[in-house]
Amino acid sequence: MAKLVNHDERKQLIAEAMWRVILDKGMEGATVRNIAEEAGLSLGALRHYFCTQDDLLVYAMTLVQERATARIETVVRQKLSPKEMVLAVLYEIVPLNKETRAEMEVWFAFIAYVNHRKDELPIPDDGVWESIQKVIGYLEISALLKKDLDLDLEAERLYSVIDGIAIHALLQPERLDAEKVRRTISHHIDSICI
Amino acid sequence: MAKLVNHDERKQLIAEAMWRVILDKGMEGATVRNIAEEAGLSLGALRHYFCTQDDLLVYAMTLVQERATARIETVVRQKLSPKEMVLAVLYEIVPLNKETRAEMEVWFAFIAYVNHRKDELPIPDDGVWESIQKVIGYLEISALLKKDLDLDLEAERLYSVIDGIAIHALLQPERLDAEKVRRTISHHIDSICI
Repeated sequence: MAKLVNHDERKQLIAEAMWRVILDKGMEGATVRNIAEEAGLSLGALRHYFCTQDDLLVYAMTLVQERATARIETVVRQKLSPKEMVLAVLYEIVPLNKETRAEMEVWFAFIAYVNHRKDELPIPDDGVWESIQKVIGYLEISALLKKDLDLDLEAERLYSVIDGIAIHALLQPERLDAEKVRRTISHHIDSICI
Repeated sequence: MAKLVNHDERKQLIAEAMWRVILDKGMEGATVRNIAEEAGLSLGALRHYFCTQDDLLVYAMTLVQERATARIETVVRQKLSPKEMVLAVLYEIVPLNKETRAEMEVWFAFIAYVNHRKDELPIPDDGVWESIQKVIGYLEISALLKKDLDLDLEAERLYSVIDGIAIHALLQPERLDAEKVRRTISHHIDSICI
């Protein structure tokens, strides 16, 4: 590469190459050899940054999670009414555009791939459960929730709605478009708010 | 094998061997060699039943789907009140016991594995969307739904709740036990019923 790239940037470029390989060939095609080729590096150079494929896997998952968190933080800094804010945060969690769709597709492939050995690897949490709890807490302190709701149960239900519709938007894009995803989420929020 | 096994039974035994290998080693361990060993067959004998690994994959997915359908049909034949019936059907879709948990774990691994080439393979549908639409229709003709609901949107929302909580029950069993899964689903059904 003509441009000088520092250590962390190079690691990011390799992780992004891994994402592209997964989107194209699935996890079974995400061999160190294919990733090195996609990143334009030799196998030896790639191993300089990641000793094992698991190191790269965990790093690439962490990077997906950090980007999603950064997007949500940007939304939270906007000047929006409480309900608009909540919807804007939830819309960042589900795959509504090309970028978040690719991120979720990669995340889904990762989670399924590491599921049977999640006790061995330092798999990052996707942060969705924490965001959902904050959303319910924020609606509560904004005095927007209906009376006598079981907040614990409502957090669990909202978490299911969000992750469920995210999976459906990912796997059934021809049936479920972005507009219907937004309408379903907004209908659910309306149903628990006054 | 001492016992005579017919062609279809042998295919089922091989598919079940594939499930066990996936539960133990993940999709990346589900090689033809490992599956043949788990089934107690030679590679040649396995190839007599399934020419390619994709043939076996599609068959094993179809078998998971057929078993889930058979369980739901058994529930539907029971004498239950409409609301009890609806909850019993929904509880069959989510992983609440060892058997349905293993089925879903295998299904999840399959779907993630085939996702990037779903246009090439005759992947069976999991049937959940169809069941959800029937549940909403059944609540409607039983005059149990609240007035003025958008049935289309309620089907979409219930579908998200069910698949979302199923994924959470699968991936976060230490956080979410069977009792809380049932409570969340039953609370959601109550929220749309009179």
